[in-house]
Amino acid sequence: MADAPTAAMLLIGNELLSGKIQEANLVVLARDLRALGVRLQRVVMVLDDVETIADEVQKLSTRHDWLFTSGGVGPTHDDVTLASVARAFGVKIERREELASLLRGFYGEKCTEGHLRMADVPEGTEFVSEMDHNPDLVEIGGRKLPWPAILVRNVFVLPGIPQVFQMKLSAVRARLRKLGARAFVSHAVFTDMDEGHLKPLLDAVVAEFPDIDVGSYPAWIGAPYRTKLTFDGRDVSRVKQAADAFCATLPDGEPRSREP
Amino acid sequence: MADAPTAAMLLIGNELLSGKIQEANLVVLARDLRALGVRLQRVVMVLDDVETIADEVQKLSTRHDWLFTSGGVGPTHDDVTLASVARAFGVKIERREELASLLRGFYGEKCTEGHLRMADVPEGTEFVSEMDHNPDLVEIGGRKLPWPAILVRNVFVLPGIPQVFQMKLSAVRARLRKLGARAFVSHAVFTDMDEGHLKPLLDAVVAEFPDIDVGSYPAWIGAPYRTKLTFDGRDVSRVKQAADAFCATLPDGEPRSREP
Repeated sequence: MADAPTAAMLLIGNELLSGKIQEANLVVLARDLRALGVRLQRVVMVLDDVETIADEVQKLSTRHDWLFTSGGVGPTHDDVTLASVARAFGVKIERREELASLLRGFYGEKCTEGHLRMADVPEGTEFVSEMDHNPDLVEIGGRKLPWPAILVRNVFVLPGIPQVFQMKLSAVRARLRKLGARAFVSHAVFTDMDEGHLKPLLDAVVAEFPDIDVGSYPAWIGAPYRTKLTFDGRDVSRVKQAADAFCATLPDGEPRSREP
Repeated sequence: MADAPTAAMLLIGNELLSGKIQEANLVVLARDLRALGVRLQRVVMVLDDVETIADEVQKLSTRHDWLFTSGGVGPTHDDVTLASVARAFGVKIERREELASLLRGFYGEKCTEGHLRMADVPEGTEFVSEMDHNPDLVEIGGRKLPWPAILVRNVFVLPGIPQVFQMKLSAVRARLRKLGARAFVSHAVFTDMDEGHLKPLLDAVVAEFPDIDVGSYPAWIGAPYRTKLTFDGRDVSRVKQAADAFCATLPDGEPRSREP
């Protein structure tokens, strides 16, 4: 799977690390990336600190094909993601008229410098939108504000609020689909055996299929099986071969079931 | 808050990065640490790869007072956390008779080398348990196996299954309570103002109370307020002072409500 494009995610916010808010965007992005054939390799969560965020953006964007940040994009003192991305790339922040005019249209006479701070983005920012057929609307106080997804080089800068984060993913998907990467596929095998007994059988299939990612997950009390085994890859026939080869080594009566 | 002990968390598992499983242990640990007065500063999530995990354990355990790992502690090929911790500290893995005898007692004649692999831990591992008054039991196939929490230097090595992870936290709490750190406290203020209008007021309170962590969180559609402001610290009187000072700058009719 060395040929799959790679990605990292940077989760930003004191409220996540203090446990005030339960993080909810990672699993949504992870599933989308998998369906797009992009391999999510690392996730980092940090506090609202410019130097820390800039350092991580610099490292993660260099070491992966794509970086997705979540959080810290509002207008207040604790929203420092865009300033940090600018610092990571050594570019300035500039006010973009395309965004400022959206804000003035939305807030009208009540538009303040605080609101307009949302139009300040790193130099070279690209606006990614599916506006034509699927408007990216952010709802504020019951009214809708069209707002594009922000892309700075290979870094998608996404908002932390889960409902808005998910809205922005339609634009992300449209962009990544252009890569034409093959989706990951997964087969699952359910057994009544425990991991201690399965270990030698798993070691054998792992050795025979180095291109397939084999996972083993013990069930918790009450599940209708004891251990779930997963076989993942981007070549559907190899994935099926690995699952078949493993099942052929199981004793009578196993596996209990398979998916798909 | 510079005097608070610090912590990091390392989440391990291909199943988390592929989106097959939604991570659930972080928020539980984060809340416990906050109540114990320990500041969680960074979370990293990585794949089941020894070199990657060892590198992160080395960095995170050096830069924080405590590190908590979650996942990768079973007996199969994808359970590489303990081997990685050993590599990070340059120590060997050894079989500990205390654990091996628990496994033999539990599995009896069916105990295999695969099961006994669970008794292999890094040299110098400490077993932390509240067994006397609160037995740390892991339930396997409807039967209970007493099992301590694993501590290697300043690294708690915890299991990924949420129910078992939470069971181990009682031993962690007992250990960290000995530090005698003061818990963090939080006050919340709810307003009908948006962040654009709040920004200058927030900037003022942030400047006046550098020891207080001020957060601003816009509500999503349907909430009974527009923006929630939080004031956090370990000195309850300073937290209250900051929230009071901020509220005194709000216009008539605000705040909408306060907690506590």
